Amino acid sequence: MLAEHGWRGTTVERVAERAGIARSTVYRRHGSVHGVLLLLMGDIYAQVPVPDTGSLRNDLVALMREVVSVWRDRAHVQYLSALVAAQHENAELARAYQQQFEHRRAATSAIIARALERGDLSPDADGDLLLDLLAGIIAQRVLLRRMPLTDDLPERITDQLLAGFGPSPGRHRPG
Amino acid sequence: MLAEHGWRGTTVERVAERAGIARSTVYRRHGSVHGVLLLLMGDIYAQVPVPDTGSLRNDLVALMREVVSVWRDRAHVQYLSALVAAQHENAELARAYQQQFEHRRAATSAIIARALERGDLSPDADGDLLLDLLAGIIAQRVLLRRMPLTDDLPERITDQLLAGFGPSPGRHRPG
Repeated sequence: MLAEHGWRGTTVERVAERAGIARSTVYRRHGSVHGVLLLLMGDIYAQVPVPDTGSLRNDLVALMREVVSVWRDRAHVQYLSALVAAQHENAELARAYQQQFEHRRAATSAIIARALERGDLSPDADGDLLLDLLAGIIAQRVLLRRMPLTDDLPERITDQLLAGFGPSPGRHRPG
Repeated sequence: MLAEHGWRGTTVERVAERAGIARSTVYRRHGSVHGVLLLLMGDIYAQVPVPDTGSLRNDLVALMREVVSVWRDRAHVQYLSALVAAQHENAELARAYQQQFEHRRAATSAIIARALERGDLSPDADGDLLLDLLAGIIAQRVLLRRMPLTDDLPERITDQLLAGFGPSPGRHRPG
């Protein structure tokens, strides 16, 4: 419905018609179309469990594999782009989504906390930045570049982020 | 106009009225509202020159300072979220935007090419991934999280990406 009518055309009336229920049922269950959008995002988060494998690298690779699999679904991408547009047009929805996001982030942060305890993560590393980089590469590639997410992305990105892009300290530098 | 009417409500008629020109002038100059959206993106890219400071770190910090300054403007963010939604609803616009993006990426890639020559970047580093991570953190923070971009972000993110998030090789690891 988002693909067909865009965010502004996805009315409670249309949601009700498509679901074969009364408009009043949509309002009672979800408050508004915003409620439906937030419910969909909750469903997406629920499809991506927070892994606990015993190592930071394996946790991040496992997380990113699940994330890649979710965002390969074109319907999910369409939905995410609608959510982005909608929350920039509606402050109330934006607040509700930010709350939902913070709740999810609190869960994902367990990966960072365990890594710090084990010494897998540099103690001065910014864990929130690390998680935003992982989420951001998906946003950049699916929302902006509309690129397919490749099978090697989860390992590639995890290894690059942990090792860094600079030359190894022992490497010979010309000049 | 995007904030007021959303992407679907931003018609050639309204663009013409706001600009005080004839509808036919909008069509002749830009083809359609898509042409206007692409023109705006071109303007944004033109505001961010590709730096050439002599070091990868300084190039990336300088680039990210300009990028942060552009995306602190709320009108730009509103525009970007509309572009994201619009290109997921319209395949022709998506193709035109991807072309524009690739053109811009070719220019930014000069930073990577120079860094490889100097040995500032690991020879097996994925330069496209590095540039997407820098773009992605902005997408994640302004489009999805609607967070303010902090002054320390350009240096912080550059240093974290170059050094990596893992513990330094010489650091004592418990266990």
